[in-house]
Amino acid sequence: MSLDLKSLVRTIPDYPKKGILFRDITTLIEHPEGFRESVERIADAHRGMDFTHVAGIEARGFIFGAGVAIALGVGFVPVRKRGKLPGQTIGQNYVLEYGVDTIEIHADVLSNVHKVLLVDDLIATGGTAIAAVNLMRRTGAICDNAAFAIDLPELGGAAKLAAENVAVHSLIAFEGH
Amino acid sequence: MSLDLKSLVRTIPDYPKKGILFRDITTLIEHPEGFRESVERIADAHRGMDFTHVAGIEARGFIFGAGVAIALGVGFVPVRKRGKLPGQTIGQNYVLEYGVDTIEIHADVLSNVHKVLLVDDLIATGGTAIAAVNLMRRTGAICDNAAFAIDLPELGGAAKLAAENVAVHSLIAFEGH
Repeated sequence: MSLDLKSLVRTIPDYPKKGILFRDITTLIEHPEGFRESVERIADAHRGMDFTHVAGIEARGFIFGAGVAIALGVGFVPVRKRGKLPGQTIGQNYVLEYGVDTIEIHADVLSNVHKVLLVDDLIATGGTAIAAVNLMRRTGAICDNAAFAIDLPELGGAAKLAAENVAVHSLIAFEGH
Repeated sequence: MSLDLKSLVRTIPDYPKKGILFRDITTLIEHPEGFRESVERIADAHRGMDFTHVAGIEARGFIFGAGVAIALGVGFVPVRKRGKLPGQTIGQNYVLEYGVDTIEIHADVLSNVHKVLLVDDLIATGGTAIAAVNLMRRTGAICDNAAFAIDLPELGGAAKLAAENVAVHSLIAFEGH
């Protein structure tokens, strides 16, 4: 496996606002080998570690997370925005540039017999990922690993996760933000 | 493969409003064999048919669709709600109970050399699925197959798709709505 995954990510300047270089993973996942290899590399880095679930963050994290769950043969836990899950939920707030948002999981899905790999498409400042780790840990589950297709290391999210004792795996790094 | 997938779907009464029996697929996808077998059954029913892409509808359709794309070894096209895709898009309106909504794909992802399998978690009245089929066909791509984890046949969506010459595959049917 030696595909250049980074070359399959499209960069869109000034999206969603001026000055931002948006890293668009749709060109990666639309590429058959690109998508499969992304998923396989994340799965291969986490085999034999007794994970019971992959948790993916809505919405792009569902795409990579579901693939990794299938590759590892484990269940998939959707981490959703507030109000999207039909059963009883537990939530965790996180701070955005302007205001506060909440992510949720079903209250009955995880407990202290579970071990979860968190998956999302991209780690930037890490606010959502830290909230997801804390949410999962509140159930008693182990959540000490997170994987991302793309890391923007200058924004510090991976370092913040490491400081919370989360081992971070990423496939592609882009300088700048 | 003989897992009773239907027994893994949780029914939540009066969600999102009184009188509705909500079929909750999170209990299916959280089950390792349940999720894998759902994806494998959909993939097995569509092997050897020269699909180039699986298209999944935001957000639960991403979960099944990404799994099926990995299983078939094809690319994944996200069909997203309006304003969520960073590149140039084409959109298709569809009618809701109160008002109109729009789904979008990137304008440059599909053309007349492509063949797409549409995947979503559930088919009810079929409004979104018909819009997605029309959107894909407008690019010149072939989109004559759709697969769903759950069909609610009394709501008529699968019949509407069949009338548009779309072959419908579903894993589980529930009477009523």
